Amino acid sequence: MQFNLNGFRTGDPDAHAASEQGVRRSSQVELPSQVDVLVVGCGPAGLTLAAQLAAFPEIDTCIVDANPGPLELGRADGIACRSMEMFQAFGFAEKVMRESYWVNETTFWRTQDEPGKGIVRTGRIDDVEPGLSEFPHTILNQARVHEFYLDIMRRSPNRIVPHYGRTLVDLAVDPASSHPVTARFEVVGADGSRQIEVVTARYAVGCDGARSTVRRSLGIPLEGDSANQAWGVMDILAVTDFPDIRLKSVITSADGGTIVLIPREGGYLARIYVEMDKLGKDERVTQRSIAIEDVIAAANRVFHPYVLDVKEIAWWSVYEIGQRMSPRFDDVSEGAAAAQLPHAFIAGDACHTHSPKAGQGMNVSMQDTFNLGWKLAAVLRGISPPELLRSYSDERRDLAKTLIDFDREWAALLSAASKPENAIDPAKVQAYFVEHGHYTAGTATRYKPSVLIGSAEHQHLATGYVVGKRFHSAPVIRLADARPMQLGHVVEADGRWRLFVFAPGGNQEASLAAVGQLCRFLTDTPQSPIVRFARPGADIDALIDVRCVLPFHHRGIEPGSLPDLLLPRKGRLELQDYEKAFCIDPQPDRDIYAMRGIDQERGCLIVVRPDQYVAQVLPFDGVAALTAFFDPIFTRP
Amino acid sequence: MQFNLNGFRTGDPDAHAASEQGVRRSSQVELPSQVDVLVVGCGPAGLTLAAQLAAFPEIDTCIVDANPGPLELGRADGIACRSMEMFQAFGFAEKVMRESYWVNETTFWRTQDEPGKGIVRTGRIDDVEPGLSEFPHTILNQARVHEFYLDIMRRSPNRIVPHYGRTLVDLAVDPASSHPVTARFEVVGADGSRQIEVVTARYAVGCDGARSTVRRSLGIPLEGDSANQAWGVMDILAVTDFPDIRLKSVITSADGGTIVLIPREGGYLARIYVEMDKLGKDERVTQRSIAIEDVIAAANRVFHPYVLDVKEIAWWSVYEIGQRMSPRFDDVSEGAAAAQLPHAFIAGDACHTHSPKAGQGMNVSMQDTFNLGWKLAAVLRGISPPELLRSYSDERRDLAKTLIDFDREWAALLSAASKPENAIDPAKVQAYFVEHGHYTAGTATRYKPSVLIGSAEHQHLATGYVVGKRFHSAPVIRLADARPMQLGHVVEADGRWRLFVFAPGGNQEASLAAVGQLCRFLTDTPQSPIVRFARPGADIDALIDVRCVLPFHHRGIEPGSLPDLLLPRKGRLELQDYEKAFCIDPQPDRDIYAMRGIDQERGCLIVVRPDQYVAQVLPFDGVAALTAFFDPIFTRP
Repeated sequence: MQFNLNGFRTGDPDAHAASEQGVRRSSQVELPSQVDVLVVGCGPAGLTLAAQLAAFPEIDTCIVDANPGPLELGRADGIACRSMEMFQAFGFAEKVMRESYWVNETTFWRTQDEPGKGIVRTGRIDDVEPGLSEFPHTILNQARVHEFYLDIMRRSPNRIVPHYGRTLVDLAVDPASSHPVTARFEVVGADGSRQIEVVTARYAVGCDGARSTVRRSLGIPLEGDSANQAWGVMDILAVTDFPDIRLKSVITSADGGTIVLIPREGGYLARIYVEMDKLGKDERVTQRSIAIEDVIAAANRVFHPYVLDVKEIAWWSVYEIGQRMSPRFDDVSEGAAAAQLPHAFIAGDACHTHSPKAGQGMNVSMQDTFNLGWKLAAVLRGISPPELLRSYSDERRDLAKTLIDFDREWAALLSAASKPENAIDPAKVQAYFVEHGHYTAGTATRYKPSVLIGSAEHQHLATGYVVGKRFHSAPVIRLADARPMQLGHVVEADGRWRLFVFAPGGNQEASLAAVGQLCRFLTDTPQSPIVRFARPGADIDALIDVRCVLPFHHRGIEPGSLPDLLLPRKGRLELQDYEKAFCIDPQPDRDIYAMRGIDQERGCLIVVRPDQYVAQVLPFDGVAALTAFFDPIFTRP
Repeated sequence: MQFNLNGFRTGDPDAHAASEQGVRRSSQVELPSQVDVLVVGCGPAGLTLAAQLAAFPEIDTCIVDANPGPLELGRADGIACRSMEMFQAFGFAEKVMRESYWVNETTFWRTQDEPGKGIVRTGRIDDVEPGLSEFPHTILNQARVHEFYLDIMRRSPNRIVPHYGRTLVDLAVDPASSHPVTARFEVVGADGSRQIEVVTARYAVGCDGARSTVRRSLGIPLEGDSANQAWGVMDILAVTDFPDIRLKSVITSADGGTIVLIPREGGYLARIYVEMDKLGKDERVTQRSIAIEDVIAAANRVFHPYVLDVKEIAWWSVYEIGQRMSPRFDDVSEGAAAAQLPHAFIAGDACHTHSPKAGQGMNVSMQDTFNLGWKLAAVLRGISPPELLRSYSDERRDLAKTLIDFDREWAALLSAASKPENAIDPAKVQAYFVEHGHYTAGTATRYKPSVLIGSAEHQHLATGYVVGKRFHSAPVIRLADARPMQLGHVVEADGRWRLFVFAPGGNQEASLAAVGQLCRFLTDTPQSPIVRFARPGADIDALIDVRCVLPFHHRGIEPGSLPDLLLPRKGRLELQDYEKAFCIDPQPDRDIYAMRGIDQERGCLIVVRPDQYVAQVLPFDGVAALTAFFDPIFTRP
């Protein structure tokens, strides 16, 4: 954490001083009539977006929800490793680590061949492949995640607080207007009277769930399978002799269907997904009037010979969810793409729904708006052209497609495995789970080459930093204060691009000289993207934050030998920033060059997007390519 | 973290539902007239105590401070590893880890022999010996630590909030009364009128600093050296070419005196201690009228040839502090000890002062009241006899004496090393620092044998768990959910004793059988301390929390094979607690038996106090000794 840059301030470093708007807004209860960004819906997608935009006081953000107040219970709970990495960027990963259940191992169970003997454990594996992320896979009530986001918003300069109890009536886009989006909300007064409030916005984002009014207003369909399988889900406090009640377990029973058991935070609570009735074509689960007693009875049939004695039901539901998605995630119709710029977007369940069993819903939704947030901010702040916004629908639609295919396959395999007539080897279920661990962890996402993702031409210089995939953190030692830390944790959710300079190895003096030469190019030549796009009065790292890793022991390098760019003077007081240079961790098996396949001899440059994705890998001397890469991304001041 | 035991509750698990008193108290501004514990002073000692007592809704605690509101700036900043371990017990170590500067390495500098050439680095070492604690040595504004404690108090059932703006006038003790302590406070009204408020209490604790009114009222002296060395201290934002500005540095200069440089949290701030004038006998530093310019000039003389360009001064002070302490820390005079029970205590600076350079002040103060807090709670809750309270003065006075001796030696060495005529080898300063690292880290504390600390007769069974020293955490795997974690982190600040059962190795079945037999003794025989002292209706682990470590791989043990005591039914719903059993971490160099010198063949029992100190090491079958140990500690119900 860095603070005090512009002078010492006491108190909570996460609590920012209120901006003028923050002071005004916090005492305001009505919807503002005009904003920069209107976010519809306070679920994981909406809150990730609002928390991201909260970092920029110059952006006027308004977030609205139909519910009367924040979520308190139920719904999603699984937090993939990739989401934990994003939470780290938002500054609350530690809180989740402390409160959550950690999914360390997964066990597999199935019915024994001998009739009536019930289920037996067939396998036990690490839930997440070792080294896949520096964070564990965790389980925490979605409401707590909401609360952490709301905390960020509340303490941000603009003191963003959701406007609850507003139902979106409709939304229209007029591209010709300065504020192209007009949204009408209905609010019910204390006396029961209904009133319409109108908000106009430069951009609107529908994070309003599977029955999204934003999506409907934009005329975007939701396509895919209709659901034909009912599932029950319950959060329970129970006593049981089932030995793996505190381990994630996949149980496929010959007669009773499938169970996915997810232990919950706090040591006592468990979530159990139970496969219920097969539904007829076009039949809705509500027509079956399934009761909680039915869900518990179904669970006990699967658990046999173990018994689940439910003491308290914290939450339960029955549902049918197919795998459905929208063909586009913004308001630009297929044919108009070249001419028209997007002004309205949909994210999360509004544009793709999954079965919950692969734990994808909340995680993919948050990644949607983590992708969109920095782009909206860059355009609204005038540092990037509005064409950038087209990439949101392109990137996230591709990803949703991949995940839905995976989800469909996994759900089908689970259902099939529970039918004895299919004779599916339990080892096959386990093998599929292991093979697709990267999908469920959220680390498999790979964006295609585009203006924001370079070609893989120089991938061999950093085989562990795959262009288009997330920047995979690794340990380093910070040079100036010898602090062991994760390099990936410097990529905070602040809208900045990062250039990671991995210095060449071999002779230390020569390596430092090469770093010096590169930095002089970046600070002194008009071709440098840092020089070309610098905003007057801004710190040198305002747009592109350069960090350097040196493959030497930190005790052998004096901070004074670093070029100015790596000890930059910043802020009102022109203080020096000592957190730009890192060395390899000398402990065994912690050398970042070895761990991430960095070319030890030549080093390389790695460009990382504000949402932590590797945009480009370049040779150490690839400054021309670097300049070319950034040219379409930033506007000239 | 465990919660939901008595039913599911949504929201922040750290925020407890308000008790009746909590509801009443939070709306009350005047001092209550009668309480169980009166804490005078909202410094680190007072807040540690209030936060500890806040865990017990049945105890009525009141904390009062003369200042108009919470501390915002300055004073102590160094947090020793041992304090971090205690913060973990209070649940906020992660917050400190995230915000603080980590003291990873310390460098040593001294004047070069050639005149005018200035200082040169003579050494660089790890600040903390590897493996000394699972936590780093950190630096964080004392005000933030206060805030974390205040958070705990605010969210506790009784909603404890300090009463600010009350100056203690005097305090008297009448042992014959049910509430033996009477304290008079002066409060100044908005109109300037002065009013006296009177509080009576069963116990009072003076955490009111070096000029403690509680100490004076009790007639306890503060004995020791008078200070004769002025020091300047400043928190600054500066630009400098001194290369170690982000490393803790000890600089002994031939002509300018000594500097201790402590980088601060946030990446820019630094604290600098500068040796200033030698004072005459009985001279006070205030008589010298030292200005901040003098301190900066003195610093620059020491830093030569490097230059310190101070951009902003966040806080500064000059001070002289000798090493002084009180002969007793409670109201029982030497001769009366056998007959009289203590009712008033002093803690922190009120009974011992150190020079700040060894970073002891805040840390020792907090450990004082961590020692006292659980004892007060046990007596007030009726589970331990009041004689227990005598041990506070005995244990903490011995400790303060040791630390003051160390501090005096260290301060003298630093001063002497800066005088060229002494020709003290800089390596000697460094060697002393390394040798005494356990003192500065706070892990050297070792309480003497007493009713609360057993003999070292069986120390060979666990050489790494020294009787009288703190329970040194080590990694384990929790059996039921395969979670890798620190065993020490189960020792939370909840006033409970712990019995760690380290099972014998060798044959797994035999080992489990032995654990089963031990547990049956503990649950089924009248000689068992758990049975003997059990309170009606209380959970089985309410007084003594039994945890077991098994020297086997966790995947080879079924939770169902554990005895009932290690899967106890608890709470209103009689849910099973799955967090009592652990296995060794199979990763290299993480076997707790090897790390802590546990007898691999025979195992052992380790009794740990509520303040995390090892009270006793016993043989695995030493149940009679276990019973005998607890007999004087608990009262029969």
